[in-house]
Amino acid sequence: MRTSTADPRARRRPGARGRGEGPIYRQIADLFEDQIRRGVLAPGERLPSVRALATERSVSIATVLQAYLQLGRRGLVEARTRSGYYARSPFTERAPRRAAGSARLQPQEIALADVIDRMLAADPAGAGGSFGATVLGGDLVPTGLLNRLLREAARRHPEHLSTYELPAAAGGLARQIARRSAAFGCRLEPERITITCGGMEALNLALRAVASRGDVVAVESPTYYGVLQAMEALGLRALEVPTHPSEGPDLATLEALFRRRAVAAALVMTNGHNPLGFVLPEAAKRALAGLAARHEIPIIEDDVYGDLPLRGPRPGVAKSFDEGGHVILCSSFSKALSPGLRLGWVEAGRHAREVRRLKALTTIATANLPCLAVAELVASGRYERHLRRTRLALGDRVERVADAVARHFPEGTRLTRPAGGCVLWVQLPRRRNGVEVYREAARSGIHVFPGAAFSPSGAFPDCVRLSCGGAWTERSERCVRALGRIVQRAG
Amino acid sequence: MRTSTADPRARRRPGARGRGEGPIYRQIADLFEDQIRRGVLAPGERLPSVRALATERSVSIATVLQAYLQLGRRGLVEARTRSGYYARSPFTERAPRRAAGSARLQPQEIALADVIDRMLAADPAGAGGSFGATVLGGDLVPTGLLNRLLREAARRHPEHLSTYELPAAAGGLARQIARRSAAFGCRLEPERITITCGGMEALNLALRAVASRGDVVAVESPTYYGVLQAMEALGLRALEVPTHPSEGPDLATLEALFRRRAVAAALVMTNGHNPLGFVLPEAAKRALAGLAARHEIPIIEDDVYGDLPLRGPRPGVAKSFDEGGHVILCSSFSKALSPGLRLGWVEAGRHAREVRRLKALTTIATANLPCLAVAELVASGRYERHLRRTRLALGDRVERVADAVARHFPEGTRLTRPAGGCVLWVQLPRRRNGVEVYREAARSGIHVFPGAAFSPSGAFPDCVRLSCGGAWTERSERCVRALGRIVQRAG
Repeated sequence: MRTSTADPRARRRPGARGRGEGPIYRQIADLFEDQIRRGVLAPGERLPSVRALATERSVSIATVLQAYLQLGRRGLVEARTRSGYYARSPFTERAPRRAAGSARLQPQEIALADVIDRMLAADPAGAGGSFGATVLGGDLVPTGLLNRLLREAARRHPEHLSTYELPAAAGGLARQIARRSAAFGCRLEPERITITCGGMEALNLALRAVASRGDVVAVESPTYYGVLQAMEALGLRALEVPTHPSEGPDLATLEALFRRRAVAAALVMTNGHNPLGFVLPEAAKRALAGLAARHEIPIIEDDVYGDLPLRGPRPGVAKSFDEGGHVILCSSFSKALSPGLRLGWVEAGRHAREVRRLKALTTIATANLPCLAVAELVASGRYERHLRRTRLALGDRVERVADAVARHFPEGTRLTRPAGGCVLWVQLPRRRNGVEVYREAARSGIHVFPGAAFSPSGAFPDCVRLSCGGAWTERSERCVRALGRIVQRAG
Repeated sequence: MRTSTADPRARRRPGARGRGEGPIYRQIADLFEDQIRRGVLAPGERLPSVRALATERSVSIATVLQAYLQLGRRGLVEARTRSGYYARSPFTERAPRRAAGSARLQPQEIALADVIDRMLAADPAGAGGSFGATVLGGDLVPTGLLNRLLREAARRHPEHLSTYELPAAAGGLARQIARRSAAFGCRLEPERITITCGGMEALNLALRAVASRGDVVAVESPTYYGVLQAMEALGLRALEVPTHPSEGPDLATLEALFRRRAVAAALVMTNGHNPLGFVLPEAAKRALAGLAARHEIPIIEDDVYGDLPLRGPRPGVAKSFDEGGHVILCSSFSKALSPGLRLGWVEAGRHAREVRRLKALTTIATANLPCLAVAELVASGRYERHLRRTRLALGDRVERVADAVARHFPEGTRLTRPAGGCVLWVQLPRRRNGVEVYREAARSGIHVFPGAAFSPSGAFPDCVRLSCGGAWTERSERCVRALGRIVQRAG
C-alpha cells in the first residue's frame, strides 16, 4: 500500500475535501486526513513535528496539537512516545457487497465441512505467531487470578464434584450475568439464563430450539464459519443477508424476509462482528428487536465479543429492546476471559424452557467449578477490571496488525477498522485468491483464515481474516511481511 | 413379599428341587435356597444359628458354614456381624417381555419429552433420600483427592486457561483411558478417543455421527430414558428390541433387523444396564461386534456404568471384539467418579473423524483442568483404588435397597439382581401403575422413576426404577417403607 514517501508538506492542498473552512486546527486535520486517505501519507510514516509545522504554518503549537489530537480521534494517526505522530492504517472500509438481484437471496445448502476441517487441522487452535484462531494471547488471560479463584471455589464448595448441577454454581453465575447486564441496559432474567459449555454450545442450543432440519436461517454475509458449520451439521440452510462492514446487516432485506416468512430465524452478531468487526448502532439493535417482535420470528443474537469493544463502553444488545422474548442472547467467557474454562450462556426468552431441555439431554449440565470461580470474579468487580486492561491491550494489538498489513500488503489492499472483537477482515487487491494465500501461508507456518469460509455461497474469495489476539512481537512483524509477499505473488 | 415367618426347620423338604444328592453342605444349601425362592424363608429373616443347625442335622459346624457360604455365593443369604445369617432379597428376575408378534418391532416415534421434563422438575438431580437420579452418594466421591488433583493440575499447567485444548489435557486423558482399557481386553486408540462433556455428549455425538433425522435406531427395551430423549430431539425413531433382564437384548432379533437393514444403528448398554442392571456375557459382546462387522452397521456401546460392576472384575466391552471399527464405545467418569467434572469419552472407530468434527462445532473442546486431574488420577493407579472401594459400597447399597423393597413392597413384587450399575428395576404386583406410584411418592418427597419413561411404546407401565447410589440411612428405610404403602394403595 506504500505509494509515496514524498513530504506531505510539499503537497498541501487545503480544502481539497471541501472542508477548508472552520477552525484552523480542523483545516490542518482535514488536510492530513485527505493525504492519508489518498495514500499520499502512508501508514507508518511520520507527520511533521509539532514545532516544525507550527513554525511553517504560523500557528500556535496548541493549534497543531489540537489538529493531531483530532486526527487521533478519527483513527488516522497515532502518537509514539518521544518520537512524534505517525499516520496509521487508513481502515478503508469496503463497500458492502449487495445482492446482485434476488438470486443471492436464495437459501443455500451449506457444504463447508471439509474445507474448514482441513483449515483447522492446519492450525491447531492458535499456534505461535498465528493469525488464525480467535483467542486472546495467553498473556492477557488472568491466569494467576483465575487459578486462585478455582482453588478457592473448590475449597469453599468441595461438593462441586458430587452433583451434576450445584445451585450456587450455574445459578450463581446466571445471577451475576443478569446483574452485570443492567450496566448496558439489559434486564436479563437469571431463571432464563442457561450456562453452557462455551458460546458454541449456546448457539447450537439456540439453533436447535427454533429451527429444524431443512429450515432456513438468515445470516450475515460474511459470518462466522463455526456457526455455518453447526448449521450444516443440523441440516439447516442459510440465507445470506447483505451486510455492511460497519453498519451491519441490511435491515430492509431482513424485514422483507421476515414479512414473507422466508426464514425460521435470523442469526446476527451485534457486537464485535466476526469477521467484520462492527458494533451495531443502538438504533439497529432496537430495529432488530422490533422486527423479531412484529413478525414473531426469533433472532439469535451472538454477543460472544460483546465484552471486547475496542473503543468506548460495553455496547448494548438487541436483547435489551426485546419485549416478547423473541431475542435469544448468546454469549461467552471464552473470548474475553478464558477459552479453557468452557463457559458460555444463553438467555433464550420464550425459548428458555426448550433450551434448558436440550441442554439437559446433550451435556446435562455445565461443570460447577468454573461457574463458581467466574461468578466470584464477576461479583467482586475484578472481571470489569480485567476487561478494561484487556480492551486496551487488544485495541493496541489490532492496530499493530492493521499497521503492519498496511505497510506490507500490496497496493489496493483494503481492511476494516474493527470497533470490537479481535479480527481484521482484509480484502486483497486485484481478486487475489484468499484460499491460495491461506494455503501458501500455512506452508510457511503462518495462519490466517480464507474469506471463502465465511459464506456458504463463497462470496468472499478475495478476502482473508487475521486474528489479532496474540502479543505483537518481532516475529509477528516478520509474519505479516511474509504474508504481504505471499499476497503479492498470489493470483 | 412377606408371606410366612414359620420356622424353616419345620418345613424341611430335602431334595425338593431334585438336588438331594451330592455333598451334605450342598444339600443343606439347596434346602434353604428352595425355601427362600418359595418365600417360605422371607428376606431379612434369620437362618438357624450354625451351632443349632449342626446339632439338629448331626453334621459338623464346618459343613453348615460351608453351606451358608455357598448360599452367600448364590446371593441368597448375607452374614451380619455378631448376629448370624439372614435370607436376602430373592432377586426374582422377571421373564423378558418378548414382542407380541411383529407389531412391537415397528419403529416408534418418541414422545417422551414432556413427561420426562415433569419428572426431572420434580427431582432436581438427586434430592436427599432420593431413589431418582443415578448419582453416587457424595460420600463415595473422592472429594479431597480430586480437589487436590485439580489444584495441582492448575499449578502445573496454569496455561490450561488460555487455550481451547491443551494437548496434555484431553490428549493425556485419552492416553490413560487407552492404557487402562488394556486391562479388560480392549485396545483403544488414543487418537480415536474424543473427550466429551460427560457421557451424554458422547452418546449424542455418536448418534449424530451415524444417524440422521427420520432414521431408525435399535434400542433395548427397556432402555435409559435420557438417550431416548436425545434421540427424540434429533428426530430419530426407536425400534425396541426385546431384552432379557439378565441376558440382554435378543441377538436373533437384532440380527434380523441388521439383515434387512431396518436400522441405521443399534444402541446397546453392555455393562450395568440402566435400568436392568445386567452385565452382558462375553459371548454376547463378541456376537454384537460380529453383527456390526458382518452387516457394517454401527453399534453404539453405552458403557457409562462399565467401571461399576457389583461383583467381579471390570467387565469387558463389545468394542474389544470390534475389527472393522463399527463399534462406537461411549463411556463416562460421571457415574463412577464425579458427575460435577463433566467428563466422558467416545472411541468412535471409523467414525472418529466425524465425531471429532461434531464435537468441534458443538462444544469445541472439553475443559482442560478436569482432564488433567483425572489423567493424573488414572495414571497414578488411584482411580482403580477408588473403584474397588466404591464397588463394594455400591454393592452393599443396592443390596440394602433390594432387601428393604423385599420386606416392604406387597406380595408379588419382582426385582432384578443387578450385576453392575446402581439401579434396581422393580415390577409392581397386579399391574399397579408406576406413574401413579411415582406421582404419589413425589408428593411425599420420595423420588423414583416410572417404568413408562424407559420405553417409547410405554411397555413398562407396572415398573419403577430405584436408584441406590445414596448412603443407606434410617431415612432410606422409612422411605422404602412409605413407598411400599404407596404401591399397596395404588391400582
